[in-house]
Amino acid sequence: MDAVRIIPLGGLGEVGKNMTVYEYRGEVVVVDAGLAFPRDEHLGVDLVLPDFDYLRSVDVRAIVLTHGHEDHVGSLPYVLREIKVAQVLATGLTLGLIKSKLDEHGLGNSTELREVDPADPPIEVGPFKLEFVRMAHSIPDNVAVVLDTPAGLIVHTSDYKLDHTPVDGMRTDVGKLAELGNRGVDLCLGDSTNAERPGFTQSERVVGEAFRQIIPLRKGKIFVTSFASNVHRVQQAIDVAIQTNRKVAIVGRSMRKNVNIARNLGYMDVPEGVIVRPQELEGLRPDQQMIVTTGSQGEPMSALTRIAYDDHPAVKVEPGDTVIISAKPVPGNELRVHDSINRLAKIGAEVLHQEIAPVHVSGHACEEEIRTVIGLLRPKALMPVHGEFRMLAAHAKLGREAGVPASAIVMAENGSVIELSRKGVREAERIESGVTFVDGLSVGDLSDVALRDRRRLSEDGVLIIVATVNGDASTARPELIARGFPETGPVLEEMRDEAARVLQELLRSDTSEIKLIQEHLHDAVGQLIYDRTRRRPLILPVVVEV
Amino acid sequence: MDAVRIIPLGGLGEVGKNMTVYEYRGEVVVVDAGLAFPRDEHLGVDLVLPDFDYLRSVDVRAIVLTHGHEDHVGSLPYVLREIKVAQVLATGLTLGLIKSKLDEHGLGNSTELREVDPADPPIEVGPFKLEFVRMAHSIPDNVAVVLDTPAGLIVHTSDYKLDHTPVDGMRTDVGKLAELGNRGVDLCLGDSTNAERPGFTQSERVVGEAFRQIIPLRKGKIFVTSFASNVHRVQQAIDVAIQTNRKVAIVGRSMRKNVNIARNLGYMDVPEGVIVRPQELEGLRPDQQMIVTTGSQGEPMSALTRIAYDDHPAVKVEPGDTVIISAKPVPGNELRVHDSINRLAKIGAEVLHQEIAPVHVSGHACEEEIRTVIGLLRPKALMPVHGEFRMLAAHAKLGREAGVPASAIVMAENGSVIELSRKGVREAERIESGVTFVDGLSVGDLSDVALRDRRRLSEDGVLIIVATVNGDASTARPELIARGFPETGPVLEEMRDEAARVLQELLRSDTSEIKLIQEHLHDAVGQLIYDRTRRRPLILPVVVEV
Repeated sequence: MDAVRIIPLGGLGEVGKNMTVYEYRGEVVVVDAGLAFPRDEHLGVDLVLPDFDYLRSVDVRAIVLTHGHEDHVGSLPYVLREIKVAQVLATGLTLGLIKSKLDEHGLGNSTELREVDPADPPIEVGPFKLEFVRMAHSIPDNVAVVLDTPAGLIVHTSDYKLDHTPVDGMRTDVGKLAELGNRGVDLCLGDSTNAERPGFTQSERVVGEAFRQIIPLRKGKIFVTSFASNVHRVQQAIDVAIQTNRKVAIVGRSMRKNVNIARNLGYMDVPEGVIVRPQELEGLRPDQQMIVTTGSQGEPMSALTRIAYDDHPAVKVEPGDTVIISAKPVPGNELRVHDSINRLAKIGAEVLHQEIAPVHVSGHACEEEIRTVIGLLRPKALMPVHGEFRMLAAHAKLGREAGVPASAIVMAENGSVIELSRKGVREAERIESGVTFVDGLSVGDLSDVALRDRRRLSEDGVLIIVATVNGDASTARPELIARGFPETGPVLEEMRDEAARVLQELLRSDTSEIKLIQEHLHDAVGQLIYDRTRRRPLILPVVVEV
Repeated sequence: MDAVRIIPLGGLGEVGKNMTVYEYRGEVVVVDAGLAFPRDEHLGVDLVLPDFDYLRSVDVRAIVLTHGHEDHVGSLPYVLREIKVAQVLATGLTLGLIKSKLDEHGLGNSTELREVDPADPPIEVGPFKLEFVRMAHSIPDNVAVVLDTPAGLIVHTSDYKLDHTPVDGMRTDVGKLAELGNRGVDLCLGDSTNAERPGFTQSERVVGEAFRQIIPLRKGKIFVTSFASNVHRVQQAIDVAIQTNRKVAIVGRSMRKNVNIARNLGYMDVPEGVIVRPQELEGLRPDQQMIVTTGSQGEPMSALTRIAYDDHPAVKVEPGDTVIISAKPVPGNELRVHDSINRLAKIGAEVLHQEIAPVHVSGHACEEEIRTVIGLLRPKALMPVHGEFRMLAAHAKLGREAGVPASAIVMAENGSVIELSRKGVREAERIESGVTFVDGLSVGDLSDVALRDRRRLSEDGVLIIVATVNGDASTARPELIARGFPETGPVLEEMRDEAARVLQELLRSDTSEIKLIQEHLHDAVGQLIYDRTRRRPLILPVVVEV
C-alpha cells in the first residue's frame, strides 16, 4: 500500500474545517481539532464536535494545530480525553491558548505539547516530515502545514489571507510558498471561505486606519468589540487609545484571557498603565476611556450584550458614546447582533458596524489571493476545503482556470477517504462520520430522535393524556395536561371529551391492553387537534391500570 | 381638541411598518394593514399580526394601502374579519393583489374596495383629504399618502427609493414632492430602512443589465428566483429570455398568481407564446429554457428549495444550469438561503447571488436619497418610521443635518400616540399595543407562557413522572417518560430511584396532598437532573390517586 489517506472530519457543511486526518499505514497526523457552533435546528445543543471515532483504530502520532480559533482547536480537550495522542504541535500563541483550555479541563498533562516555528527544520513525525509556513489570518501565529509524505508533498494552507502589511509584520511567507512550488507540490488542501468573492481581502491595517479616523474627535466613551482572539485588532484599538490619551478597560472573560496570554507571550505590546480595571474608569472623563469587550456576535451572556441591556455590573453605555463592532456576524447571528445595535442606539450611542463603516476586514483570501497561492504552489492536484460546497466549487473553478486538470481536483465531503499516490488523487471510500453533540455535561448521548422531538415540542408543545383504567373496565374521565399549547379553553375540553369517548369505547369492546389504548388515544386526539387547530403537539398518553 | 393623533402599530421592532393610525376626533384613517414574519424565538408561530384592538373603539373611515407587500397588506383579512371598515383605498396593482387574498379568506364582499390613482384630485375621507404620490419601490404602483388634516399637512412616504429610471417609467414623482414642500409640510413620516447606508440605491435597471450580461452565452437552463411581487424583476428576466429565444416556465404558487394578476392588469408585458407550462419544457433544449421560480428566501416548501432537494415534480436542476438568486436574504433567512445555494452547487449548477454578482438592488432609499426627499419636502417635523431603532436614529441624524430642529424630530415606538397640532409634534401617551400570533388556525390564543414553555421544551425536552398513590399510602415505583431528552440510560434510572425515594418519604410522613407530592417530585428530580447533566427539561409530575 503506497497511498496516503486524507480524511476530512466534522463540521456542519464545511469540509475539513474542524479536523483532517493524514494516514499512512495506520500512522496518523491530525491537522486541527476544532468544533462547530450549533445552528438553530440543533435545539439546546451547546457545541458540535467532529465524530472522531476513526482515531480509535489508528496510531495518532501527533495533532498539529494551525491556529488558535475554536473551529480549529475547540475539540482538543474532548479528543485528548478519549484518544491516545503522542504529541500536540503548534506555534507559540496557539500553544498558549490551548494550554489554558486544557488546564480548565484538567488535561494539562495528558500529552506532550511541543512548540514549533516556521523557521524550524523539518520535523519527523512517523512517516511524515512536517514543515510550517507563516500565513496571515485574523489571529497571529497561523501556519500552513507542509507534509512530506511517502506519496508526495502536501500543503495544507489552513485559513489564510495574503496580508502583505500585517500589523505584526509577520506576512504570509510567499517566498516559501514559491520555494515549495519549485520543489513540486503534489496536493494542496486550500482555504475556500472567500473563493466566491472577487478581488483581494484588505489588509488588517485598514481597520487601524478606520480607528484612527473615528476615535480622536469623539467626546464620549469608546467601546470596541471584536473576536477575543483577534489580537491585532485589539492591539490597533489600544494603539489609538494610547495616542488619544484614553485608558483601556478589558471587559469579558475571554477577552481578558486572550489579552493576558497574548501580552505574556509577547504578541501584544501595551505599555504599563494603559490597561485599567473597569472600576478604575469611574474617575475618568468619558473621553479618557476605551472599553474593549466581548460580544461582537450578540452572544446572549456576553459583556456587550449585558451592557446593551444595561445589565453589566461595572460598565454603562451612555448617550454620546461610540460603539465600534469590529466583526462581521457569523451567518445565523445577524438578528442577535442587530438587536444589540438597536439597544445601544436606543440608549443614545452611535454604533459603527461593518455594514456602514470600514471597521472590519475578513481573515480569508478572496479570488485573486487564491489565484496567487495556486500560482505560487502550482500543485499537481487540488482539494478545496474549509468552506461550504458553493465555496469549494468556486475554489475548484479557480484551480481549473489556473491549469490544474479537472481530474486532479477532488471535491471531498467530510468522511471522504481521499487517497494520494504516485498515480494521483482519488476518493477511495467513505467512512462513517458525522458530528457529536455536547449538550450540558453530556457528550454524544443526544440522539436524532430526541432532537426531532425537541423540534416538534418547540413548534407545537406537548399534550399529556392521563387515563386510569380499573380492573373492572370502569374509568374516570381522562385528565389533559398541555404545555407550549393553549392550556385551557374549549378545544382542550373537546379533546378531553374525545379521549373519554375513545376510552369508553375501547373498554366496552373489552380492549384492555395498555399499548393499544395508548395508540387509540394518541391517534384520535391527535387527529381532532389537527382538524381544529392545524397544530401537531407531541401527544403522550399515560394509561394507569389500577 | 385640535390635534391629530398618529399611532404606529405592529411590527417586530420596526416602527409603523405594518400599520399606522391617523385619528382626529374619533375618526380614523389607517395606512397599511401588514404583518411581520416570526423570528426564531417565535417557535411554531406562522404569522405575526399587529395588535389592532385600538381600532375597535374608533370609527375606521378607510384603510389606505401604499403597496402590495405582505408587511403592508398581509393582516388586512384579519382586520376586516374583526373591524368595521368603510372602505379600502389602493392603487390598481395593490388592489388586484388584495382582491385575490380577500377572496381566499372568503372576505370578497366585506368592504368597499376603491381604486385610487396619483393623478386623482384629493379624496375626502372623514376629516382628512387624501392625495397620493407615486414612489418607486421593489413592487409597482407604490404610493406615498398625503393627509391634509385639521392639524396640518402630513406626508407618509411608504417604503420608497428614488429610482429615476424605473423599468415601467413610473419614477418617484419628485415634482409633486417639491410642490408639497412649497405648500408646506408639517410632518413627514419617512422610510428609514437604508438610512444607515451611504450613497444612493441603484436603479432596478442595473439588474436587467446584469441579466443581459449573464444569460446570453449560457448553454444550460436558466433559473431566476426573486420575490413573487417584484414584477419588474420578473419582467426584466422574461425580456432577456425573449431576446435569447428561451421559453419561460413560471413555477411556484405565489409567482404564478402574481404574474397572472400583473399581466391581467397590464403591469407586465409578455407576448403570447413566451410563457409555457413546466411540462412543456421537456421538448426543449436547455438553452431554450428559463424557469422563474419562488424560493428566493430558501423557504422550506418553496419551489426552488424543492428543486434544490431534487423533490419537484416538474422541474430539475442539472449540471451546467445557472441559478440566479435575485434577492437578498431577509435577516434571519441567511442559513436557509446558503443551504439552497450549496445544494444547487452540489448538483452542478452555477449559482449567482447578490454577494457575488449585481443581481439584486434594494427597494429602499439610502442616505443621499433621504436627504433629497427631506430637501424637497422641507418638513417642519420629522418622524422616522419603517425600520429598526438604529435606522430611525440614522434617519433622525439626516433630518437634523438638513435643518429640522431636534425638538421637531419624534422618535416613536409602536404604541406611541404622537400628537400633531398647530404647536408641533409631541408624544402624548402610549397605548397598550403589541403583536398577535397566528399559529395554525388560531389567532391570538398563544400566550407568552406557552411560548416560554416551547422554548424550554426545545432546549431540554420534557420529563414526565407518573406516580400512583394508593389510599393506604402504598405506591408502585414511579414511571418516567422522557422526550427530547435521552430516553433511557443510567441517569434516567437514577431519576426514577430519586422519584421513588421522594414518594416513599412523603407517604411515610403522611403527606398525601397531590399538589405537594407533585411539587416535591418536581423539585427533587429537577435538581438531580441539573446536577448530573446541566439540563433543565420541563418536568411534569402526574400523580394518580387510586
